[in-house]
Amino acid sequence: MEIVGAIDRDPAKAGHTLNEVLAVNAPRSKGGEVSVADRPQEVLARVRADMAMIATGSFIADVYPQILAAVERKMNVITIAEEMGQPRAQHAREADELHRAAFRNGVTVMGTGVNPGFILDTLIIALTGVCADIQGIRATRINDLSPYGPTVLRTQGVGATVEEFNRGLAEGTIFGHIGFLESMRLLTDALGWDLDEVKQVRKPIVSKTRRVTPHVTVEPGMVAGCEHVAHGIKDGRTLITLEHPQQVLPQSEGVETGDYIHIQGTPEINLQIKPEIAGGVATTALAVNMIPHVLNSRPGLFTMREMPVPAAVLGDIRRLLARGR
Amino acid sequence: MEIVGAIDRDPAKAGHTLNEVLAVNAPRSKGGEVSVADRPQEVLARVRADMAMIATGSFIADVYPQILAAVERKMNVITIAEEMGQPRAQHAREADELHRAAFRNGVTVMGTGVNPGFILDTLIIALTGVCADIQGIRATRINDLSPYGPTVLRTQGVGATVEEFNRGLAEGTIFGHIGFLESMRLLTDALGWDLDEVKQVRKPIVSKTRRVTPHVTVEPGMVAGCEHVAHGIKDGRTLITLEHPQQVLPQSEGVETGDYIHIQGTPEINLQIKPEIAGGVATTALAVNMIPHVLNSRPGLFTMREMPVPAAVLGDIRRLLARGR
Repeated sequence: MEIVGAIDRDPAKAGHTLNEVLAVNAPRSKGGEVSVADRPQEVLARVRADMAMIATGSFIADVYPQILAAVERKMNVITIAEEMGQPRAQHAREADELHRAAFRNGVTVMGTGVNPGFILDTLIIALTGVCADIQGIRATRINDLSPYGPTVLRTQGVGATVEEFNRGLAEGTIFGHIGFLESMRLLTDALGWDLDEVKQVRKPIVSKTRRVTPHVTVEPGMVAGCEHVAHGIKDGRTLITLEHPQQVLPQSEGVETGDYIHIQGTPEINLQIKPEIAGGVATTALAVNMIPHVLNSRPGLFTMREMPVPAAVLGDIRRLLARGR
Repeated sequence: MEIVGAIDRDPAKAGHTLNEVLAVNAPRSKGGEVSVADRPQEVLARVRADMAMIATGSFIADVYPQILAAVERKMNVITIAEEMGQPRAQHAREADELHRAAFRNGVTVMGTGVNPGFILDTLIIALTGVCADIQGIRATRINDLSPYGPTVLRTQGVGATVEEFNRGLAEGTIFGHIGFLESMRLLTDALGWDLDEVKQVRKPIVSKTRRVTPHVTVEPGMVAGCEHVAHGIKDGRTLITLEHPQQVLPQSEGVETGDYIHIQGTPEINLQIKPEIAGGVATTALAVNMIPHVLNSRPGLFTMREMPVPAAVLGDIRRLLARGR
């Protein structure tokens, strides 16, 4: 693989090499070292690439024009925008337009990431493959936000008072996890279920302990994070429960981090991954590891559930491309 | 889905309806109730079907002509024959021939099952999707053979003396798990790894307790099952270890049944499913649940790792077929 272009809208990064911006010392591509540009159209007009990786925002409103610009230059696209995990969940019109544009240009567009994209959807779907029937699904991802930066902490209400938390929820500055609707839709599409409603509940996690992290200190009585739960309901019964309490240092109150999946069915499945799969590296790894599957795919807009089983790319990527069969 | 034919070589079943043979009371298909036939060619000549499900044996030598007969009648094929989990592992020539025959007839052939097919390969592969690098993989499936019949128990040496066990190993009547070479090949193909060697070790599990099951009683000092381990080795180092000790009532010596996966990498992953996923229902469920993926696939011989993520089929199967997109 060769990196042939890099775009960041931050003008402070423009003109610097990727190695400088990332503070790494990666070997140069044969075309020389790539510099970061802050004008997307300039880069898109200049380079030819098989794949554009887009990691600029969570919402389709933000990434839609970026994806379209790459697709129209006949680039396949992988994005970690959460709403692109299953864009049909909330943006059917944009999804249709992206599908048509991708099809017309002979390329594939797909969203991925740890969540939505893996723990609370793809991994559950894969497990249901061994089930003859299913009465209900419950999955819980308990993580520790301490490694994250101030933006993430603020959107989860970490360090706020309960009053500030509730005001933030009402005003939309605190919103918990982005992706439950997308994960629910991935699950129900895969299984062939119809839900009447997805009900989301967000509550402050009020700390009983003093929690000190690099970016914020949470005193007892203050908010350590957001308990965010989504209920997928059919005929008044909850078929799917997805829980993702996000806070700093849950261990300080004896809560173990982990990913937990319980499928009530035939057979019953009780899975746990402890500690939880680290989210940052998982998202970047998935984005890169899905490259061969996306390049091999027929053209169009697809989701993780329609792609072959994800896999780490550890050898020569050319071996994994269909033309090499 | 409609069942249009049923074949069993046992002449005692011939002429009886499926409901009689299976001792169930399933609703009739619109074409009337299907009777079991013991002459395959007769059924194949008479019926037209999208899919043939083949569950007749573990080895390619046995199922190869059966698969070919169905393919030549333009039927897609799903089989639970263990060696078909990745036929290229041990039978490259037959795999090539099946691929060409399937391609020529515009149908897809795939092997699946709990193992090979899921726990020790597909599930591990899916987990590696979140990994940026991997140093080693270790997976262990500890199950209880008590629900199985006398044939399975005999091939694992259950109830034998240690001397009988070792003789059975040497003579090939006791052989442990069938499928390690197939699982290893699925893993290494997915990751792009090359192994120098797969070393298999089989040892008797000598019981310290009295283990009473419907089909056999194991006295202390006798063999409760077969500890079977496969080591995938590269440059003298074990990269992949797959362990599948199969015995009756491991609980009697405090051994908990379960499926365990440890990926030493970035991130590190520690997964457990307790108790283990029940093997019999998982195999039948996978065979049925993969039907839409196999029908949607391009023609040829494929494996689980090349198919979309498996998923339980709980709704109308037509919604899951590509033409319905």
